[in-house]
Amino acid sequence: MTHIFDTIFIIGGGLIGASMALASQAKRAANTVILTDKDSDVRAQLRDLKIGDEVYGFDDAKQNIGRADLVVLAVPSGAMVKALSDFLPHLKLGCLVSDVGSIKENIITGILPILPKGVEFIGGHPIAGTEKSGPAAGFASLFENRWCILTPQDETSNHAKCLKKFWQCLGSEVAFMDAKRHDLVLATTSHLPHLIAYALVGTATDMETVTRNEVVKYSAGGFRDFTRIAASDPVMWRDVFLGNRDAVLDVLGRYIEDLTALKKSIRWGDGEHLLKEFTKTRNIRERIIDAGQDSSAPNFGRDQKESDSEA
Amino acid sequence: MTHIFDTIFIIGGGLIGASMALASQAKRAANTVILTDKDSDVRAQLRDLKIGDEVYGFDDAKQNIGRADLVVLAVPSGAMVKALSDFLPHLKLGCLVSDVGSIKENIITGILPILPKGVEFIGGHPIAGTEKSGPAAGFASLFENRWCILTPQDETSNHAKCLKKFWQCLGSEVAFMDAKRHDLVLATTSHLPHLIAYALVGTATDMETVTRNEVVKYSAGGFRDFTRIAASDPVMWRDVFLGNRDAVLDVLGRYIEDLTALKKSIRWGDGEHLLKEFTKTRNIRERIIDAGQDSSAPNFGRDQKESDSEA
Repeated sequence: MTHIFDTIFIIGGGLIGASMALASQAKRAANTVILTDKDSDVRAQLRDLKIGDEVYGFDDAKQNIGRADLVVLAVPSGAMVKALSDFLPHLKLGCLVSDVGSIKENIITGILPILPKGVEFIGGHPIAGTEKSGPAAGFASLFENRWCILTPQDETSNHAKCLKKFWQCLGSEVAFMDAKRHDLVLATTSHLPHLIAYALVGTATDMETVTRNEVVKYSAGGFRDFTRIAASDPVMWRDVFLGNRDAVLDVLGRYIEDLTALKKSIRWGDGEHLLKEFTKTRNIRERIIDAGQDSSAPNFGRDQKESDSEA
Repeated sequence: MTHIFDTIFIIGGGLIGASMALASQAKRAANTVILTDKDSDVRAQLRDLKIGDEVYGFDDAKQNIGRADLVVLAVPSGAMVKALSDFLPHLKLGCLVSDVGSIKENIITGILPILPKGVEFIGGHPIAGTEKSGPAAGFASLFENRWCILTPQDETSNHAKCLKKFWQCLGSEVAFMDAKRHDLVLATTSHLPHLIAYALVGTATDMETVTRNEVVKYSAGGFRDFTRIAASDPVMWRDVFLGNRDAVLDVLGRYIEDLTALKKSIRWGDGEHLLKEFTKTRNIRERIIDAGQDSSAPNFGRDQKESDSEA
């Protein structure tokens, strides 16, 4: 089997960068996987964990990035332009640059003007991740059965086809999408959920009438689910909200309207409206499970091991 | 080993009632477990699944409830008073009545005035459950390592001690709490999380600019977590919000304030405030995991099986 790219160069060795390196090696999507990270601790971890074929600090990275057919920016959205601009004079003519950021238009707008002639950029976003951060959190199957959205300007270009094949090789299903549409869809399915989880965990831990100890003890009533999402990387998420402001404010405005309507129903004892709203939300979960995007096990199966051994 | 109660009688054979019956049998917390449910389909399922020693329709239940030392109301909060009142003349003198409702003050206020002399009521609430409903969703280990809150008027009474032992026997840790305090604490750790999950899933599925198909496909970005909670029993949750109105409106008001502050930070590009808020929420998850109330596995471990086989 021929590799999809001979040499790929990943800038940023966190959860996503490390997982891409592991997946590329496991699936033989590339002949050589090179990683760089500005943090020497991260580089040391990458080497210890044998993630990637070569791991370089900044100076050596500059010397070697010219070997890459695909350069992937795997840093927080707000750091993409800076991370790439340091390497611009050293890119190979004809190479492809991509990224894994959770927002697309803002990143594309930042990168296109600085791109050298003969180098193409295609935005990418694997809809995959966990609440953990850092190289040790990476694993090769992270992208399996998950969607990866690509936002090429020309969906029929060779680079677009190659990048699609690359992500398919890593186990993902690939969708081409307009960058602006991506930002609106993801504001709904990802950015807003994270914002309201951060807000809830903040509210609960700041209550002066309920102790943190009580919040922890009785978290199995629903709260614990939100703490997982609210444990996600703070810098990454700050950058998402700053970079996708308009779409997030749009869906957040609608959400606050809907929540306020529920509040009004509670205040006025309108059980019919509550029942109607709570009933219509059940069906979407079945569709998500049918689409292979979540586990059908009760409580995500997380308490199942206990029950298996106890029942 | 002596049983904690000789005969227990559970009214309502849904997820919680069925799990209590299974756990009581598995742990030998009772000599005889009797179940009744007003729905003949539920009764048939209970019999098929061999849940409980005896399963009765209404008329036979009336004949047999007088054998019970403990009667447990396991129906939605709004149906508790009605469910009990049908059986009032048939209760054994000296028996204990309890419940498993997610709200306490409202239920206690409804039940105390109708209780016959010589029968005691102690409110109970196991902080355990799943998004599934019905007898087939029940399992014996549901209450293992979960807290159960009891709200006795006299914590030193024999009935309070017995009920505590009973829940401990089912695997729970037991806390005594004032009913009003219970309602405020649970409004924070359970009722508000459910309300905002219902609201989010409602908002996302009602967007005219984002299709349901897109919401389903890209749900792994965070949304899928909320659909689990929003798949919970609609009648049960309607009753919770109607029955715990003041506490829910209080914490919901605070939550909307906090969310609005985040909205303002996004609008004005205040990255410092966002970063501060997103950082302080990380620690609480570690405490929840340390307390044994959630899994430390990434994504609750639900994608782990795939990764184990693929990595």
